[in-house]
Amino acid sequence: MTRIERDIEFIKEIDKMKSIDRMTSLIGLDKRENDAEHSWHISVLAMVVEEYLEEEVDLLKVLKMLLVHDLVEIYAGDTFAYDEEGYKDKLERENLAADRVFGILPKDKGQIFRDYWQEFEDMSTREALFANSVDRLQPILNNFYNGGGTWLKHQVPKEKVVQRLEPIKSVSKELYKYAMDLIDRSVELGYLREEY
Amino acid sequence: MTRIERDIEFIKEIDKMKSIDRMTSLIGLDKRENDAEHSWHISVLAMVVEEYLEEEVDLLKVLKMLLVHDLVEIYAGDTFAYDEEGYKDKLERENLAADRVFGILPKDKGQIFRDYWQEFEDMSTREALFANSVDRLQPILNNFYNGGGTWLKHQVPKEKVVQRLEPIKSVSKELYKYAMDLIDRSVELGYLREEY
Repeated sequence: MTRIERDIEFIKEIDKMKSIDRMTSLIGLDKRENDAEHSWHISVLAMVVEEYLEEEVDLLKVLKMLLVHDLVEIYAGDTFAYDEEGYKDKLERENLAADRVFGILPKDKGQIFRDYWQEFEDMSTREALFANSVDRLQPILNNFYNGGGTWLKHQVPKEKVVQRLEPIKSVSKELYKYAMDLIDRSVELGYLREEY
Repeated sequence: MTRIERDIEFIKEIDKMKSIDRMTSLIGLDKRENDAEHSWHISVLAMVVEEYLEEEVDLLKVLKMLLVHDLVEIYAGDTFAYDEEGYKDKLERENLAADRVFGILPKDKGQIFRDYWQEFEDMSTREALFANSVDRLQPILNNFYNGGGTWLKHQVPKEKVVQRLEPIKSVSKELYKYAMDLIDRSVELGYLREEY
């Protein structure tokens, strides 16, 4: 295959993202969100809330990470954020999946794309922390606007949701405060369990 | 509403993109693609084929345009590329829709986002030409891999598809050649009508 043929083979393969369902539902609809929709939504979210960051980030890098960070789920599936069993072999499953999906691209480009995914996972740069922040903020919004959504369905305790806000806390006090307020209101409204 | 509340109101509203169906189907599936999925897919496509551009572009600007260019369809609906009737009032419908959707954001940010959409529509910068290129390349791939897809269903003549390649031609001879080859193969395979 020529270089461009490998590129297009990759583009064809990742069409499958549109059929990988996540746990969260679309707002106001009894239809689950898929990975392609989610990746788009959090990319726009990053554009919108960038202004609340305390330190500047390379937004292009952030968007690149967000656009490819869920591709591994084509083979590894979506692991629900509060599924402790699923998290045990998540790393291994996703590493193999990353080799496979990024391996479709020409080697040099596949490595660059794989590095974006790895950086997102490692959460050790400001860009990765911000990317993880929007990835975690969006399901909070969807669950809140869906009257509890997956929180209620899976009886998720507040503490577990708060734990997942760590990256947000590290990049923006203002966004963190906003998210914490939503969580507190969710407890009041009975969407989230107060007790562990 | 506070600034951040308007931001989140916008994020909530654009969840509707996940329910705006386009004409093209997912590859190999009898299910139509929606605007959120499409916007994500062409953003990754831009990352992948950027290397074939003859002149450098500001990729961040390109991605921002791609991520928001279809938001107007929340109110204006998707206009099929080969629907001449629909194109008559497309501009008016989409201008009103742009006022409405970008108007949810804080005014300064809403204007910036509206400008990305306008730049995409005007196609007068290299970034906009590239953004329009991937927006037009992706349905070609989906139709090709779907054995003709909407081309066959609507009896689209080759000439109409070729006309839509103009932006691609202006940014990359290599991408243009690739797209033209796919179109020629589509005619041979009976996916596209040769005659007008």
